[in-house]
Amino acid sequence: MDVGAIHRLSYEDFVSVFGNVVERCPFIPAAVWSQRPFPSVAALQAAIFDFIEALPESGKEGILRCLSDLAGKELRGGTLSRESREEQGAAGLDRMDAAEVSRMARLNAQYKERFGFPFVMCARTSDKAAIEEQLRERLRNAHAQEISRAVEEVKKICRLRLQDLVLTDQINKL
Amino acid sequence: MDVGAIHRLSYEDFVSVFGNVVERCPFIPAAVWSQRPFPSVAALQAAIFDFIEALPESGKEGILRCLSDLAGKELRGGTLSRESREEQGAAGLDRMDAAEVSRMARLNAQYKERFGFPFVMCARTSDKAAIEEQLRERLRNAHAQEISRAVEEVKKICRLRLQDLVLTDQINKL
Repeated sequence: MDVGAIHRLSYEDFVSVFGNVVERCPFIPAAVWSQRPFPSVAALQAAIFDFIEALPESGKEGILRCLSDLAGKELRGGTLSRESREEQGAAGLDRMDAAEVSRMARLNAQYKERFGFPFVMCARTSDKAAIEEQLRERLRNAHAQEISRAVEEVKKICRLRLQDLVLTDQINKL
Repeated sequence: MDVGAIHRLSYEDFVSVFGNVVERCPFIPAAVWSQRPFPSVAALQAAIFDFIEALPESGKEGILRCLSDLAGKELRGGTLSRESREEQGAAGLDRMDAAEVSRMARLNAQYKERFGFPFVMCARTSDKAAIEEQLRERLRNAHAQEISRAVEEVKKICRLRLQDLVLTDQINKL
């Protein structure tokens, strides 16, 4: 992806391309558009991460609450975003038996009850066993620690989504 | 709408009900859920407004960039949110002749070129002549002044959308 091409994007095309690098938060790339030009895709990524980090704790929780459960009813109901569906599929979450689905549902519910936001983890670079293990572990975290931990996962997801956009050259498809 | 009922909503149901009170920004009600319980709908509204006001200028611009043009291609293409479609329809923006459409397109383009976000106005309490007049006037504003002006309109839109949710008792339909 040509960084000059990114610079030439109107805010509308920019949001159209980068709108879901943070799940269901087009507001975030829409905000960082104000800081263009970006000398590199890494600089765009840094601007997104800085924007997220500067939000109050409730804002970070707001971002987390825009994500869907891993192996949850939106995956089964087919209502995930394209990106989430592919990420959850890559981890094998769409090929779980009834016992696994029910175990994840119980753990997700416990997590949400405890923290007030969904369990967020970059699924794409993981698999269902590791996801379940990490969910069990993170259930023991303190609230503030877990917000930071979950935001780190949002960033990992964002980084990979940005890489995809660079590789598939979305800008030239506008 | 019973305020106790709002307090009992999980974050998922809360975002499902209030997710579009700020257009395409479910992140905002998702964030203010952290501050529940709300003693009244007015308190919920105040929490949303405070959250918006506390954002940096780029964040406010990000919110504005999530809104669609008035009388723009999304209205004609049928891709507006339900709320926006109804609001633009109430102002008669879906019943404009070719000359009016073309005049609004030119003014919207001038506005976006000047400010880097779309012209935002609470259409529902207005009509197409008043909208065009206000667009021409606001084109003369300074950048910072116009961000504040546009954010005031976001709040008017939000206030009416909240009122609708109260009146139609969305919570009981969950």
